[in-house]
Amino acid sequence: MTKIDAAFYRGNRTFTVEQAEAPAPGAGEVQLRIAYCGICGTDMHVFHGNMDARVGLNRIVGHEMSAVVEAVGEGVTNVSPGQNVVVRPLDPCGDCPACKRGHGHICHNQKFLGLDTDGAMQELWNAPAHTLHVLPEGMRLDHAALIEPVAVACHDVRMAAVQPGEDVVVIGGGPIGVLVAMVACEAGGNVVLSEVNETRLEIARKLGFDTVNPAKEDLKAVIEARTGTKGADVVFEVSGSQPGVDAMTAVAATRARIVMVAIHAKKPQVDMFQFFWRELNLIGARVYEAEDYDKAIALVAEGKIDAETVITDVSPLAEIQQAFESLDASPTALKSLIKVGDPA
Amino acid sequence: MTKIDAAFYRGNRTFTVEQAEAPAPGAGEVQLRIAYCGICGTDMHVFHGNMDARVGLNRIVGHEMSAVVEAVGEGVTNVSPGQNVVVRPLDPCGDCPACKRGHGHICHNQKFLGLDTDGAMQELWNAPAHTLHVLPEGMRLDHAALIEPVAVACHDVRMAAVQPGEDVVVIGGGPIGVLVAMVACEAGGNVVLSEVNETRLEIARKLGFDTVNPAKEDLKAVIEARTGTKGADVVFEVSGSQPGVDAMTAVAATRARIVMVAIHAKKPQVDMFQFFWRELNLIGARVYEAEDYDKAIALVAEGKIDAETVITDVSPLAEIQQAFESLDASPTALKSLIKVGDPA
Repeated sequence: MTKIDAAFYRGNRTFTVEQAEAPAPGAGEVQLRIAYCGICGTDMHVFHGNMDARVGLNRIVGHEMSAVVEAVGEGVTNVSPGQNVVVRPLDPCGDCPACKRGHGHICHNQKFLGLDTDGAMQELWNAPAHTLHVLPEGMRLDHAALIEPVAVACHDVRMAAVQPGEDVVVIGGGPIGVLVAMVACEAGGNVVLSEVNETRLEIARKLGFDTVNPAKEDLKAVIEARTGTKGADVVFEVSGSQPGVDAMTAVAATRARIVMVAIHAKKPQVDMFQFFWRELNLIGARVYEAEDYDKAIALVAEGKIDAETVITDVSPLAEIQQAFESLDASPTALKSLIKVGDPA
Repeated sequence: MTKIDAAFYRGNRTFTVEQAEAPAPGAGEVQLRIAYCGICGTDMHVFHGNMDARVGLNRIVGHEMSAVVEAVGEGVTNVSPGQNVVVRPLDPCGDCPACKRGHGHICHNQKFLGLDTDGAMQELWNAPAHTLHVLPEGMRLDHAALIEPVAVACHDVRMAAVQPGEDVVVIGGGPIGVLVAMVACEAGGNVVLSEVNETRLEIARKLGFDTVNPAKEDLKAVIEARTGTKGADVVFEVSGSQPGVDAMTAVAATRARIVMVAIHAKKPQVDMFQFFWRELNLIGARVYEAEDYDKAIALVAEGKIDAETVITDVSPLAEIQQAFESLDASPTALKSLIKVGDPA
């Protein structure tokens, strides 16, 4: 077996890069030579030790990746060696009530690759062939590492069915909030981004967004002034905070669609009266489906996602520990990539 | 002017029946000789003094009514004297953001007839012609007084888009909950009604519904057992309580639609994680639109609403005070009607 470098999560805020053996791809699997892998908020939760029960202390994380096909296992016909690809890191059971209704992305027994299985923070990774999307000619592999989070944003915007000319408020300006704002903008929405962190606001303004800091300005009043008292047609709650949940109903127009993107670990208080009174619609949105990946690939290919601004730093795999520590401490980073290998 | 009997809300849990003068209908108005008028939960809120600021102490309430056209004002062409009618008691401004988008039923400046204006607890009532729906031949006027609350249920079920064979849970078994259950059943749903009041449960069972008392049984377990762990496709939250809000997400299937029918005066804690995780959809639903009235009239006409069971008592206008007091004290009453006059 081939010896490779792989980054293992060992608990206690520690990743160690160790030599590992790369098995040949099994039936239905594809061996991928990883180019880049982004650090996701979920990976940061792993780093913080919040997911030890789920991932254990011998886990190779990583799912926001790009790669070149190295070899294919038995029965694989959808890709061939040398092709540039990304993985849609979902492995649904096919048998639960969600899968039976065609909603495999929210399978009740979902295996999320890179959390429930080993992931892409290693030079060679065997992934199920059905998870692969082939990249178009000429797409840079560092930019391609954004496709997974862009697909999240594409799913959110598709679930909201944003229409050209609609007034959109994105609450929360982290990486996903910014990408949701970009995709909503591309769908024709008039986007305002609400965020309390001044550094993130600066990045958002640099990206061309109208911004509001709700700690300094009355967000509801700003939105009412912009919309002639109508309010926002679409609201994305990406903050995961009680003030964000308060704002989502306050800025919503009659029959507005509010998309719940954030993970609320605690149950927030929600203005249910406003849902009744204004006939609001709350739409939960989780990960992505194949068509969201197709859309995300198209947006990155067409340069509709400002990858150069979103990717704030790139570190080699050997420096993964420092990369997590820096990202954790940094108020300025948006998306940090790990350059896992150099397959090109 | 004609002298008539009218019931005035005078504050302090008091209705008094007094002689009043009935003006001729103005332009665009229709003078109605009222037959029956139901007591709504909102009327009970008035009785309790919770709405004094809105209704004042000189208000004739009543909006769940049936009548015969007595006379028409200038320019009225849609009805003629002698026709049996009901009023859809909404008078939208036509100019706010909701009205401009065709959602006049949730007008920002809505005048609700019988609360913001005088209503139907009087022998002759002048209502805007545009609010009238003509009743089919042969419909009993006492049954017709149910059309307004049935239209609420029709709106709720239409907003949920209940499909034949879907699993439906109605949380709360008061008059609206029972009517929602009936209409959802008629739409082909497999309905379970959840209610803590044993007397109401008995009525629901008499109406043929499968019921659960969540104080005695585990509602989630019951629904999982009935649906093969899938959960409910559609949930109606009609309880207005924190346990109801807890239950609505607990029993919901992946991508379930949850309709917020109840008025939550306090902000409940809501399991937002479940909205994200299961991609749930929360739909606020308020009053009704013209097509909901059409549907409600058809359902009552076809005998699809068990009016004889839903209407638990009828009192003459002279006894309106006792009727409110009895309904307030009674755990067995479902819908109390006032027989305002005898126009037939």
